[in-house]
Amino acid sequence: PKASIAEERKAPSFPIRELTYWIDGDERTTKLKERIMLELERDPLWRVSDHPNLTLAETRERAMSKVRRLADLATSRPLEETMLRMSIISVVDPGFWTRFGVHFGLFFGALQGQATPSQLAYWMDKGAMSMQGITGCFGMTELGHGSNVAGLETTATFDEAADEFVVHSPTLTATKWWIGGAAHTATHCSVYAQLIVKGKCYGTKTFVVQLRDTSTFQLMPGVNIGDLGKKMGRDQIDNGWIRFTHVRIPRSHMLMKHTKVTRSGEVIEPALAQLAYGALIQGRVSMVSDSANVAKRALTIATRYASVRRQFSDGTPGALETKLIDYPIHQHRLLPLMAQTFAMIFTAREVNANYQRLMGVLSELGSDAKGAAVDEAIKDLKETHATSAGLKAFCTWMCLNIIDQCRQSLGGHGYSAYTGLAQAYSDFAVHCTWEGDNTILTLQCGRYLVATALEARKGQPLPANLAYLKAALSKDGSVSTSPCKGSTPEQVSSLDTLKAAWSSVAANAIINAVRDFEAGRAKGLSKDNAYEHSSASRLHAARMHTYTYLLHRFAAQVEQSPEALRPVLTLLAQLFGAHSAVQHSGEFLQSGFYSGAQIEALKTFVNHACIEVRKDAVPLTDAFGYTDYVINSPLGRYDGDVYEKYFELVTSLNPTKPIPYFDSLIKPLLERTNEVETGPELEIDQE
Amino acid sequence: PKASIAEERKAPSFPIRELTYWIDGDERTTKLKERIMLELERDPLWRVSDHPNLTLAETRERAMSKVRRLADLATSRPLEETMLRMSIISVVDPGFWTRFGVHFGLFFGALQGQATPSQLAYWMDKGAMSMQGITGCFGMTELGHGSNVAGLETTATFDEAADEFVVHSPTLTATKWWIGGAAHTATHCSVYAQLIVKGKCYGTKTFVVQLRDTSTFQLMPGVNIGDLGKKMGRDQIDNGWIRFTHVRIPRSHMLMKHTKVTRSGEVIEPALAQLAYGALIQGRVSMVSDSANVAKRALTIATRYASVRRQFSDGTPGALETKLIDYPIHQHRLLPLMAQTFAMIFTAREVNANYQRLMGVLSELGSDAKGAAVDEAIKDLKETHATSAGLKAFCTWMCLNIIDQCRQSLGGHGYSAYTGLAQAYSDFAVHCTWEGDNTILTLQCGRYLVATALEARKGQPLPANLAYLKAALSKDGSVSTSPCKGSTPEQVSSLDTLKAAWSSVAANAIINAVRDFEAGRAKGLSKDNAYEHSSASRLHAARMHTYTYLLHRFAAQVEQSPEALRPVLTLLAQLFGAHSAVQHSGEFLQSGFYSGAQIEALKTFVNHACIEVRKDAVPLTDAFGYTDYVINSPLGRYDGDVYEKYFELVTSLNPTKPIPYFDSLIKPLLERTNEVETGPELEIDQE
Repeated sequence: PKASIAEERKAPSFPIRELTYWIDGDERTTKLKERIMLELERDPLWRVSDHPNLTLAETRERAMSKVRRLADLATSRPLEETMLRMSIISVVDPGFWTRFGVHFGLFFGALQGQATPSQLAYWMDKGAMSMQGITGCFGMTELGHGSNVAGLETTATFDEAADEFVVHSPTLTATKWWIGGAAHTATHCSVYAQLIVKGKCYGTKTFVVQLRDTSTFQLMPGVNIGDLGKKMGRDQIDNGWIRFTHVRIPRSHMLMKHTKVTRSGEVIEPALAQLAYGALIQGRVSMVSDSANVAKRALTIATRYASVRRQFSDGTPGALETKLIDYPIHQHRLLPLMAQTFAMIFTAREVNANYQRLMGVLSELGSDAKGAAVDEAIKDLKETHATSAGLKAFCTWMCLNIIDQCRQSLGGHGYSAYTGLAQAYSDFAVHCTWEGDNTILTLQCGRYLVATALEARKGQPLPANLAYLKAALSKDGSVSTSPCKGSTPEQVSSLDTLKAAWSSVAANAIINAVRDFEAGRAKGLSKDNAYEHSSASRLHAARMHTYTYLLHRFAAQVEQSPEALRPVLTLLAQLFGAHSAVQHSGEFLQSGFYSGAQIEALKTFVNHACIEVRKDAVPLTDAFGYTDYVINSPLGRYDGDVYEKYFELVTSLNPTKPIPYFDSLIKPLLERTNEVETGPELEIDQE
Repeated sequence: PKASIAEERKAPSFPIRELTYWIDGDERTTKLKERIMLELERDPLWRVSDHPNLTLAETRERAMSKVRRLADLATSRPLEETMLRMSIISVVDPGFWTRFGVHFGLFFGALQGQATPSQLAYWMDKGAMSMQGITGCFGMTELGHGSNVAGLETTATFDEAADEFVVHSPTLTATKWWIGGAAHTATHCSVYAQLIVKGKCYGTKTFVVQLRDTSTFQLMPGVNIGDLGKKMGRDQIDNGWIRFTHVRIPRSHMLMKHTKVTRSGEVIEPALAQLAYGALIQGRVSMVSDSANVAKRALTIATRYASVRRQFSDGTPGALETKLIDYPIHQHRLLPLMAQTFAMIFTAREVNANYQRLMGVLSELGSDAKGAAVDEAIKDLKETHATSAGLKAFCTWMCLNIIDQCRQSLGGHGYSAYTGLAQAYSDFAVHCTWEGDNTILTLQCGRYLVATALEARKGQPLPANLAYLKAALSKDGSVSTSPCKGSTPEQVSSLDTLKAAWSSVAANAIINAVRDFEAGRAKGLSKDNAYEHSSASRLHAARMHTYTYLLHRFAAQVEQSPEALRPVLTLLAQLFGAHSAVQHSGEFLQSGFYSGAQIEALKTFVNHACIEVRKDAVPLTDAFGYTDYVINSPLGRYDGDVYEKYFELVTSLNPTKPIPYFDSLIKPLLERTNEVETGPELEIDQE
């Protein structure tokens, strides 16, 4: 096996190390990541290979034992390093990442985003950032309410006489549910509740509620908490439920950066409610990176194993069996996923940069600004909000599929808990639900697309990412304005052609959704109901738009890439665009962009691209730059020594022991005689 | 919630009970199933709701404790009842089903299928059927060899002097791997090994090797066994590895129904090697039923929850929020899966009946028969072999997708271990790999399709299920011979039209695969390499053929169904055919069967069908006839009381306990001070 993989590295078509730098951003970042990976690998606290054998209790305790180490590093080391460390941990140990992220990302993030400066100073002084005195959790979802935050049932009623809020769960379905860190860890919670002042409800706001005494960990009066126990994955984080029964908190524990409640019960609402979007976007943007990072690991495992595993020989006597990766069908299974992974890597980078830029603009404007600059920024924010919603949904779905396809490509060994992808699937699956259920996010994205098309028809300028709508809007738009002219595989699959192809299909899909929306309106439906009426085509429009967006971002990054990398990256971008187009060939035929013969040419290109990418398959996984520690799968080892190391791992984690129930269960089974009880003879039967 | 689900049952369009009988086969079978479900539910051994909280050791012991009960029932009760009991257990407790099935289905199945009559009598006498004296496992796969049974490395070398075979694992990769029951349970193993006689290798045959002393459970000399530990799912079964080091067994322990080795080392090979296919087919056929049965459970949970869960209101003050099932997009998520489930239910029934009929014919013929009847039967066998390979692959993939789509449709609650679908996914996933990796089976099916088309062109008659190839073969076949003529949603979606549509697309796909194969041959490739060359189009052909087959079988069952059921079943069959066609619209456009406008009409039909099926959604799940015990999910309860029962289950399984690591980990974290070590002043810095 070692020789099998070594030969894969003999003649890469590109400089591997340079691609690593390009993926990571620059050489410095790569080296910083390598330093962090080494530090984690050498720290016994961070052993992960035995995770499958831990019980739920052990899993949680192991996770807790690492919190302090990371909290200390997070406060003493530069933020950039902490962010990189967390991004590596999100691949190595996603359950722990959540345990830690609930405090730093969600609880402390809520303080940063929603507290006034003096409130933030107060909580930081109490140790809320460094977990010195306070550990936090994030109390949004309820047993009966997930995606519909506006419909939460928990109430926070202002008691003017006492200058306090009374936090209360009025029903069973109001029970806070899925609250990470609530069962075992948190002293405080940022609770989302309906603000009620003088009998009037002002919608969902955020309140800091103390859950436990910080020195005894006893629950505070009126607070009931329970453990949600086992989950599909991420058992490192202790999700719990919380019920509040008339819990009193000072008025100042409502986070008042946006909405304020004065001593006399006056409620002051903010001018720019949209700014609260910012925090939502951040989570979604980061999940595009997560999807890319997790997909890199899955593909490294599957690709390296496929370069080592041999199966069936071509009949030549004495010949080695054929490597899996040399089978065309195996190339078709893995290499389009490789292209998808690169699409996500590069899109994540651009989306992140856009987001940072936008947040910079918004924070410079401040929340009281007015005028054209603000309008522009808000428009930008809406676009980013919608695009990031679509990206979050389709990239997490894409990554979940990549994990499972890679797992299945390992054959039976993919079913072992020690080869890494079974757990990766269970851990990752929640990404499709949290921070916005994917289907709902997709519909939001689709709604934005329809609304933007409608506004553009009224003369509003189109955002850059939707410029492709222009041609479709100027005419009826039901068929492509300029069909593909070429006929050879090369002609139909150039990056420019593919970009035009996807733009035309996305434009078509949006126009179709607009048509369905308008048909609903014409039937007299309300705006919301007309949107419901068009939900299937809206979802489809969001999908087509997101693929188009991914391809454009990928292509833009290819253009900027170092020359030595451009051929392989161009090929991958083409494979992404062409393979996705073949998967959705009906759309292209219906839009008229490609003919049936051109689709066949596109398939030929995909076959060809798979053969070409296959030559670089292992070098491409090397360029992802994950160490064997991060890969954490004997089948994905750099050196290809899969069987020896797999055997060693399995035997060392499962030492032979006497069978505990031989005497009680097996021996009696084997030695039983089962004499049949027939009963006495019955005289009546002999008559 | 109870009222929400009750209103769903007010006006079903069909008699629910009658559909249950039709699904199960007849009223008697339904009642027998109900009796079995009640017996399981009342037997404390069969408690399953606490499974998520058991450790690996507890899980295995719990499973072992049930083996004896089931073995006693299997030997004392009629076979039909045992089969039904096992099919229910495969849904309720799939890991245990495997633990038990390894002995009865695989080990004892190998004896039944491959032992001579006197060998079978010998092993039955030893207690091999009833597990009185012998528990068996099935030793086929190796660390380095899964799908390629012919390439197994374990050897069984005939030692003529001693009249014994010597069973040996020559390398690490020859280690038997994934052997269910080996780690803890089995006394004997049916070992697949290369038969070597007088230096000549005769290929893979089966040998019974004793692993452990039946009274002490000590390993036999030369047998090493280890535990494979944790898996993605099915932890009830103790998979292990086995290494043989020159283990001697009597010659008579080779199973000699087919190939025989005489005392003097003469090897007599059978005339009809194909007959060994039979056992493979049975496993595949039963996995179509399994897929249907597991999908029924997943859809019951998702559909009932969607009829109870409410989310977002339409704005009317005081109105209840809208049920998930009333959102068009939620209907689109679930109801096509409902149609797929019915397609699998009815296909499983027909395929099963065909298989039983064929086995009857073969056993009547006997293994020495010759002549036209045998040729006919073998042809039939090949067709069933290929079709069942495709069905196994696509139905298990379909079911796995249904489970995960249903799980995602539960939102966050789908991620809990107590709502049933996370574990269902992990347990079911192995179906896509074992008994033939799905991709490899698909390619086998595709190879058969290509070969049959080639033979038909030479004048051989087409099997009935491939009759649709006739028109395509008689001409060039690149486009549909008779495009769809209608234009309204009704016209394009009639069952006859859909059957013709799918037949035309499948024919096209097969012709394309033939063309790719022939192009490979024309380039001078060997037959095998030409098949490799066409693997992408072969896989596609198998997919199209299998969808077509499913639709035809579904339609055939609809025609035979009781009149009162026919409208709803017809609609489901149309939804299956139309939704799948829209998903693959490119194929239909390319074949020319549907135009772009007709595809749009088909989409309109799918929207309409979803609205219609939605009215019967809960009654359809009721007709599946699973009790709450089998559903084993608080979200899928018959009475809709989801929140109360979910809360009860979670709190009863996870009682509040003191946090075990508060003193050791949390308190020190909260109370730490992190004084920064600055070191002494350095004089050099002051110079």
